[in-house]
Amino acid sequence: MSPPTPETLSSTNPTHVSSTCKAHNLTPDEFATLSRRAAEAKQLAYCPYSRFRVGAAVLTADGSFVTGCNVENASYPVGTCAERVALGRAVAEGHAAKQEGGGGGFRALAVATDVTPPASPCGMCRQFIREFLELDAPIIMFDKNRDYVVLKLGELLPLSFGPDKLPPPGTPGAMG
Amino acid sequence: MSPPTPETLSSTNPTHVSSTCKAHNLTPDEFATLSRRAAEAKQLAYCPYSRFRVGAAVLTADGSFVTGCNVENASYPVGTCAERVALGRAVAEGHAAKQEGGGGGFRALAVATDVTPPASPCGMCRQFIREFLELDAPIIMFDKNRDYVVLKLGELLPLSFGPDKLPPPGTPGAMG
Amino acid sequence: MSPPTPETLSSTNPTHVSSTCKAHNLTPDEFATLSRRAAEAKQLAYCPYSRFRVGAAVLTADGSFVTGCNVENASYPVGTCAERVALGRAVAEGHAAKQEGGGGGFRALAVATDVTPPASPCGMCRQFIREFLELDAPIIMFDKNRDYVVLKLGELLPLSFGPDKLPPPGTPGAMG
Amino acid sequence: MSPPTPETLSSTNPTHVSSTCKAHNLTPDEFATLSRRAAEAKQLAYCPYSRFRVGAAVLTADGSFVTGCNVENASYPVGTCAERVALGRAVAEGHAAKQEGGGGGFRALAVATDVTPPASPCGMCRQFIREFLELDAPIIMFDKNRDYVVLKLGELLPLSFGPDKLPPPGTPGAMG
Repeated sequence: MSPPTPETLSSTNPTHVSSTCKAHNLTPDEFATLSRRAAEAKQLAYCPYSRFRVGAAVLTADGSFVTGCNVENASYPVGTCAERVALGRAVAEGHAAKQEGGGGGFRALAVATDVTPPASPCGMCRQFIREFLELDAPIIMFDKNRDYVVLKLGELLPLSFGPDKLPPPGTPGAMG
Repeated sequence: MSPPTPETLSSTNPTHVSSTCKAHNLTPDEFATLSRRAAEAKQLAYCPYSRFRVGAAVLTADGSFVTGCNVENASYPVGTCAERVALGRAVAEGHAAKQEGGGGGFRALAVATDVTPPASPCGMCRQFIREFLELDAPIIMFDKNRDYVVLKLGELLPLSFGPDKLPPPGTPGAMG
Repeated sequence: MSPPTPETLSSTNPTHVSSTCKAHNLTPDEFATLSRRAAEAKQLAYCPYSRFRVGAAVLTADGSFVTGCNVENASYPVGTCAERVALGRAVAEGHAAKQEGGGGGFRALAVATDVTPPASPCGMCRQFIREFLELDAPIIMFDKNRDYVVLKLGELLPLSFGPDKLPPPGTPGAMG
Repeated sequence: MSPPTPETLSSTNPTHVSSTCKAHNLTPDEFATLSRRAAEAKQLAYCPYSRFRVGAAVLTADGSFVTGCNVENASYPVGTCAERVALGRAVAEGHAAKQEGGGGGFRALAVATDVTPPASPCGMCRQFIREFLELDAPIIMFDKNRDYVVLKLGELLPLSFGPDKLPPPGTPGAMG
């Protein structure tokens, strides 16, 4: 059976925020910045087709915040999501330099939309995130009022297909 | 915390198969055919880049089986996975005619690879499957020896981003 | 400068069809079947988000026709296009068994939409097609009235990034 | 017939560079910066699977340069290319704010790889670029020695499927 839907928490409730920060090793400032930066990024969304704006912010190991928004395309499958833009940008800014083994360089990811309850990252983004964040990293999903739900990556993508599953390129045994 | 890794079961253990079939409303014949067809489909994989063969088979509401394999591309992101080929083919064969609301036309999906323990569908495929299968539909993952793990779609993609999350196209309110 | 837009031809003009068939090594029957099958496939499109139906048909080396339609997803980038469904299905049906070097197993691809002038395959599909069709294979684009434009794959994707560009997996020199 | 392969030019040949700059409305400084930034971005590529490094740089209307690199994934189709990372990042940095109609906010895009002759953007990236650059914008492809080939976007993606092809979302007439 699917896990129960997690509780929706309030960004303006100090008890909620404090509990979230403690559980996921974030400072209140980091939490507040993730929320604000994801919401700001949403305003730059290029989404003339879905008109569904999404913003994302990722917290790096060195305490930086990198944001992204969805970028759609006339050929829908060619577009990309906010989470992938944020992480791709973070890689291009050098934040994943030591990440070839998967995980490690990022501490948390936040996503913000205009709906409530909060929308979650699509499966494709969960897979993209999986390459760079640890399974116990928090994914914080903000709704239009900055109320939020938080789950660990491993809860959003259980039994994931990660880098460990894939044989190194050129390994002949892979097909045998 | 992530759910514990589910138990690996054996296709040649009648108790395991019987229990799986009962839990997921499959006949032993349907289970055996899913296993065989996914493994056969694997042999048609076009995967010169990863050399990681994947086969998939989907069981439709009317009892048909539709298969797919991974189809890679020199530009890696342009390739596609076995699960999406199988479901895309099933749609093109008319098996999803009544599915606009999501779910309903398919009863189970199986995937087969050359590794052990069994590999799971990637997040992108979980999202693709989400559009067409019910959250309680079984996803059966076979390893190279046809041992398997089975989870419901909702367990593989909890708190999913589904058709219900998206405002109908052209709804101005979507942007807030 | 971009090449001039090619002339729109008529499926009901015998001179046009005859000229197209001669230029691209098709029989009139093959041309007619590509047109009909692409249009029929269009009717199975799953496109609740764009409401833009697309059908595709591919002619295999052994004279079979394999069809596909677009299959969209609530997460737009996860959906797929008709051309890729048709070719993925063809691979899963065994029509690309000898194609690892690129090209050879398919002779032509047709696509049909509900607009006029005819829509062309998106860039992602051109890239997917590139893996399996020769650069001089015809891509026939039918509009809503079955009028059409035809170009060779190499004209739609000049200076393409093909399998020849990519170093074999595991070749260390690739990074040097 | 496909257009002939364009001539490979040399970044260290003043006549070549001057001619390129004149034809595409770039200053020599802009050209040199595109070349340098694309090559630098390449060094940040996350490509453990293909080991094929790609860097990209885009020149914005206001004279900024935004870079990207390829970011691969264990599930190959989930990864993304350097060109899309660069443009996605540029959108997330606000450089496409006025671009809903397509084109206008970007003047040129450069891509750099470790091979020679230079590799071109894949079809998926050409489609992504199409949403934001004009058809006469130059796409400059640098090889491992910074020799280069330059073509206009419209030459790389003739008869493109652009925003103009797609009916506005929610337009019922789109299907009929």
